[in-house]
Amino acid sequence: MKPVKIGLLGLGTVGTGVVRILEGHQEDLSSQVGSPIVIEKIAVKTLDKSRSIDVDPRKLTEDPWSVIRDPEIDVIVEVMGGVDQTKAYILEALERGKHIVTANKDLMALYGSEILAKAMEHQCDVFYEASVAGGIPIIRTLIEGFSSDRIMKIMGIVNGTTNYILSKMSQEGASYEDVLKEAQQLGYAESDPTSDVEGLDAARKMTILGTLGFRTNVELNDVHVRGISSVSREDILYAKRLGYEMKLLGIAERQDDEFSITVQPTMVKKTHPIAAVNGVYNAVYVHGEAVGETMFYGAGAGEMPTATSVVADLVAVVKNLKLGVNGLKAIVPYKPKKLKTDEQIAYKNFLLLHVDDKAGVLAQITQVFAEYEVSLESVVQSPNTNLDGAEIMIVTHNASKASMNKVLAHFESLDVIHRIKSVYRVEG
Amino acid sequence: MKPVKIGLLGLGTVGTGVVRILEGHQEDLSSQVGSPIVIEKIAVKTLDKSRSIDVDPRKLTEDPWSVIRDPEIDVIVEVMGGVDQTKAYILEALERGKHIVTANKDLMALYGSEILAKAMEHQCDVFYEASVAGGIPIIRTLIEGFSSDRIMKIMGIVNGTTNYILSKMSQEGASYEDVLKEAQQLGYAESDPTSDVEGLDAARKMTILGTLGFRTNVELNDVHVRGISSVSREDILYAKRLGYEMKLLGIAERQDDEFSITVQPTMVKKTHPIAAVNGVYNAVYVHGEAVGETMFYGAGAGEMPTATSVVADLVAVVKNLKLGVNGLKAIVPYKPKKLKTDEQIAYKNFLLLHVDDKAGVLAQITQVFAEYEVSLESVVQSPNTNLDGAEIMIVTHNASKASMNKVLAHFESLDVIHRIKSVYRVEG
Repeated sequence: MKPVKIGLLGLGTVGTGVVRILEGHQEDLSSQVGSPIVIEKIAVKTLDKSRSIDVDPRKLTEDPWSVIRDPEIDVIVEVMGGVDQTKAYILEALERGKHIVTANKDLMALYGSEILAKAMEHQCDVFYEASVAGGIPIIRTLIEGFSSDRIMKIMGIVNGTTNYILSKMSQEGASYEDVLKEAQQLGYAESDPTSDVEGLDAARKMTILGTLGFRTNVELNDVHVRGISSVSREDILYAKRLGYEMKLLGIAERQDDEFSITVQPTMVKKTHPIAAVNGVYNAVYVHGEAVGETMFYGAGAGEMPTATSVVADLVAVVKNLKLGVNGLKAIVPYKPKKLKTDEQIAYKNFLLLHVDDKAGVLAQITQVFAEYEVSLESVVQSPNTNLDGAEIMIVTHNASKASMNKVLAHFESLDVIHRIKSVYRVEG
Repeated sequence: MKPVKIGLLGLGTVGTGVVRILEGHQEDLSSQVGSPIVIEKIAVKTLDKSRSIDVDPRKLTEDPWSVIRDPEIDVIVEVMGGVDQTKAYILEALERGKHIVTANKDLMALYGSEILAKAMEHQCDVFYEASVAGGIPIIRTLIEGFSSDRIMKIMGIVNGTTNYILSKMSQEGASYEDVLKEAQQLGYAESDPTSDVEGLDAARKMTILGTLGFRTNVELNDVHVRGISSVSREDILYAKRLGYEMKLLGIAERQDDEFSITVQPTMVKKTHPIAAVNGVYNAVYVHGEAVGETMFYGAGAGEMPTATSVVADLVAVVKNLKLGVNGLKAIVPYKPKKLKTDEQIAYKNFLLLHVDDKAGVLAQITQVFAEYEVSLESVVQSPNTNLDGAEIMIVTHNASKASMNKVLAHFESLDVIHRIKSVYRVEG
């Protein structure tokens, strides 16, 4: 049977994995799709570089356009990363009728709707399973597995670097700075870790999951983001003492047709399944109205897990090619976008306050909560031997973000409060 | 647009859920598939029964054949259960060109290959996501999400009743008999619990998962089954003491092209993600050569979770109908079946022996292991105050089933061993 010809953009970690799987599983793949899948051309940064796999040097080019414009090529597999230039490649490839498989979360989070619209126009497939949570088939699950349900909440540990750092801090009582340094040495964190530790990477992935889960066009700007760089050893210690683990969670939730999406360090009750997800692993917890609680767990990054998702998408494209139905199953967000206001967003909060150690302080503080109608689940006061004064740990019941903002602003003006040391969302 | 017409066989728990979702989510579903999905006829056992939902009585019939033979109906949704009679309905429906969505694990485990062959012949879809692990989209995941990978091991908690019983025994130190009685009162266990507690239900589900995971035609007879009725309170206590949880695991694994499938109570290391799956929840752990460790968690049964999977399958059928590609994506097992021999099946074992409390006993016992080349991970001897003699707990390294059988046979003839109290597989 006529082979299906692939153009590969990028031969870094994931690209190498894709080549390995296509070569190693050629027989299995052909049996499934009915014809061989052949890599026709590979665009690389520099031709003369030592690589961990053997590639026919005649297939390599430094010019991505020569891959995009090759009329022999049916499918473009984009694993080079980047946004603006890469978008130009993808759009032209679609105009030329080529199908796209991409692992590029940045591209899909920023320009997903434009790219999917272009794909529909040209009846092309665009699949991007590998863009979120590496080897976990969560995109497929949201599109197909839960097509019948109404998804109410998605909570994701979708960044391996920050989960590694928080897990280590929790398990070893180590400081943020020390673990970050270690993660950089192990290659789990970039030399400039900003995108990971400040939650931007997670926010991009949550944009994609939110769009699919709520079937509305979520944009990156809709996501409220807070990273983990201010999480202290002490915060994690207090969390554990109260029965929580600290996790950087992306949380997308809706009520009726309004939704909110945040990425923030969150104290998760230890009994919640996502609290036990440690190290570089990822997990996505999905609460559907009908299906209830589900969770999907696996490697979030790495050569082979990510390549597994890329090649699974490739298999889907090739099956569609055989059936002549490419570009006909795209998910078009059809719901108007309605963001929750700060009055509508509600969750539990943890606060750690450094206060005067004298009578009446607790009364003043609880009075402020009462004034803004925030009710409390627990209050624990303890002297702090390292500080003058005392410490108060508070866990609220569900409180609106608007009310909590008022409480915190009020606290700033209270003389008995030296410092608001920490504020975290609480889940589970 | 022309509505798609459904015939429903069965209006029990799952059938009721299907009606609820189709009514409650009609708008969402139409937006996805481009036309309304309408229930045309429903076959029930008795017409005059009180039901928790309102159904137009003119749609009800006591004659399934009148549903199967209705030329207006495009898709049959089978949620009535049963095997032989149900198979006859399904086969005739396929001959009449109707697509099938079924939640029937017994049917698919016993006659899946015959039904799928008939479906291919008539270019019809047969989807059965709800047949395994209720609301967890594991079948889709094995077919599509991991199409690019080579699945090496599947471990499943696929029976909620037994997981509820073992979880309760572990959490409360209760006896098997007491918890079973409680589960029956709560409706988590049938009045005749044999199929659940003896592992037969799990074995049927593992037959389906093994066929999909290994792409070979696994039959129910290929599954070695042992249930939980002999698991004692003491076994679970010992398991916990060594850092394990007792779970009824279905384990399908392969090496090269040989595979084995078992269902048996297994001691799972507490650090393994599947050890934390408690109560009626289900989970399927999949180890792929490329993707590594993944796990999928959710409700394994119940009206709404199971109905979610049924209706998701229905959406897939209707999308295929619109594209005219039904029956073209069926997975045909293409690998010849090679079962592992007892020499090739290897795993760790836990043994609890009641022995004479005198010098030299341990030496005799370890000598037997050495004779059959089984090496040991740990041996703990302790006096048992309730018995004369002592108890020895042994955990082996990986040992072939053949060798272990020889060890156990030899033990039967050793005078110093009063009784082999327990033998369990160990994982993680």
